[in-house]
Amino acid sequence: MAMQRQWQVAARPVGRPLVHDDFQLAEVPVAAPRVGEVVVRTAYLSFDPAQKSWMENAAGYMDPVEIGGVMPGSGVGEVVESAHPDFAVGDMVYGHLGWRELATVRGQRLDKAPAGVSPEAVLSVLGGTGRTAYLALMKVGKPLAGDTLVISGAAGATGSLVGQLGKIAGCRVIGIAGGPEKCAWLTDELGFDGAIDYKGEKVRARLRDLAPGGIDIFFDNIGGDLLNDALARLAQRARVVICGGISRYNFDPRSPQMPEGPRNYFNVVFTGATIQGFLMPQYERDFPEADARLAAWLRSGKLVARADVLQGFEQAPEALMRLFEGRNRGKQILKVTDG
Amino acid sequence: MAMQRQWQVAARPVGRPLVHDDFQLAEVPVAAPRVGEVVVRTAYLSFDPAQKSWMENAAGYMDPVEIGGVMPGSGVGEVVESAHPDFAVGDMVYGHLGWRELATVRGQRLDKAPAGVSPEAVLSVLGGTGRTAYLALMKVGKPLAGDTLVISGAAGATGSLVGQLGKIAGCRVIGIAGGPEKCAWLTDELGFDGAIDYKGEKVRARLRDLAPGGIDIFFDNIGGDLLNDALARLAQRARVVICGGISRYNFDPRSPQMPEGPRNYFNVVFTGATIQGFLMPQYERDFPEADARLAAWLRSGKLVARADVLQGFEQAPEALMRLFEGRNRGKQILKVTDG
Repeated sequence: MAMQRQWQVAARPVGRPLVHDDFQLAEVPVAAPRVGEVVVRTAYLSFDPAQKSWMENAAGYMDPVEIGGVMPGSGVGEVVESAHPDFAVGDMVYGHLGWRELATVRGQRLDKAPAGVSPEAVLSVLGGTGRTAYLALMKVGKPLAGDTLVISGAAGATGSLVGQLGKIAGCRVIGIAGGPEKCAWLTDELGFDGAIDYKGEKVRARLRDLAPGGIDIFFDNIGGDLLNDALARLAQRARVVICGGISRYNFDPRSPQMPEGPRNYFNVVFTGATIQGFLMPQYERDFPEADARLAAWLRSGKLVARADVLQGFEQAPEALMRLFEGRNRGKQILKVTDG
Repeated sequence: MAMQRQWQVAARPVGRPLVHDDFQLAEVPVAAPRVGEVVVRTAYLSFDPAQKSWMENAAGYMDPVEIGGVMPGSGVGEVVESAHPDFAVGDMVYGHLGWRELATVRGQRLDKAPAGVSPEAVLSVLGGTGRTAYLALMKVGKPLAGDTLVISGAAGATGSLVGQLGKIAGCRVIGIAGGPEKCAWLTDELGFDGAIDYKGEKVRARLRDLAPGGIDIFFDNIGGDLLNDALARLAQRARVVICGGISRYNFDPRSPQMPEGPRNYFNVVFTGATIQGFLMPQYERDFPEADARLAAWLRSGKLVARADVLQGFEQAPEALMRLFEGRNRGKQILKVTDG
């Protein structure tokens, strides 16, 4: 019986940062595919802050994650055995594979990677990251040409994509990121109209300079002070998209360390603005639209995939932890195999 | 030249509660009406927490209020002199009269009181209060039959009307108010399905009992802890209407006494919920719809006007201050003349 390595959830990181002991590496047999299943050799894994909440069992829309169970996560890989009529050996597929070298999964939960799109691009622009960026911006943010779009966590996987999508939609795009290098990357390489270094600059004053007419869309991946500062600068009928809140994920809601709620929420009354959360499962019927547009823009070069690639299966916990320290630039992925 | 009394703004109550010295009583000549103007003898004045923000010049959508200028406010009264073709002496009208016994105002800023509707009903169900309740609930809250609607400040002018409108729309209506008397009034006299006494009961536990399926619409007049508690209990795709925040109005935004922002705002991500501010001027084209429906429901008895009536022009500052102490039950108004 063939064996494979997999990363398992060893502990729940509730109210604290992730540590290496939250994960355990195990060697287990590869499950033979039942009818409708395929076996995928994982080539790349994808990392997202939401995975921490899955480990905590905090996200109600996910199947519960068990201690000792395989760590959930998305990836791309090659079909090496198939018991599903739509998949053949050699097909490149992506979807929820889990952190394992060989994943036995139901074919219906996988998508085929489009021809001519690299695995890095599949994970950074298609799949969950692309759908999140596209649907949260288009369906919640509702951009109009000429809108001023401000993004927190702009150098992250979602933020860097949202900024590019905002440019396609005709917005003026301002990114907020940590450090001058990330900011230069946003303006020089991704085509953002402006960038604010929240570690070195006064965010509210810079917003006043860069968005003198107010913010039409604030796309938030961070929460905390950045959200509060943005709420102070809303334009009439602004849309605030709450997509993430990484400043919160390491704290218990009752902890005094948990960032305060945004006092400036009340400015929605002076602007008629909307603060709306993005919950992916509510937009399932729009997935085909998102996938088709993203793939087309990727092929035409309007969207550029930006992946930050670690290497080696044993680095998976490290790759996830990088997100919470803001060490990634663009989408964090892991090349599972060497060479 | 005829003289009249008026209340003037004497100081700006920024970052602190109102005091009597914020107002000064003056005797000034009645301005003769120019073409298009009428003179109205004020019969009743209407009070609203927003008037404090007008005194502070905090509400950007209002004309600036000057120190020494007449205190702005709505009222109902009788036309005693007219230079406007649509208004005749004896017409009962309502609109922005200011706190003065005889108001010289442009006719186009006034509405005629519908026949058979008392002045108390005009001010508590029509005008700004009625429009706010109707438009904020219908256009922002978007009630569906069967929705659970929870209202903070439910015994206030807007809240007590929103609850009645929610019943008309087929909602299950829960009010939050201060004290058992107000709560009994909501359920026994206004037909609310439930009430929570925030001064004597644990709000979050009571919300769990009374809204076990979660809150579909939270209509907030208060802010602070009540908003945070409600955000903990949102249903999927809930709508949170920010109409007021009276827990905030006495504090400077930077003061440590200012209530914290709602930490639970992040639950919008787990529910796809929306938090939206209601800004009246954005709904001007819907005023005729609001006015017509409210007047019809009032005449048919589906809506009951609930006014808390003080008497005597000199009591006007007191009437406004009552709102911030939660002493009013229903709409606070003032009968200007004795008898």
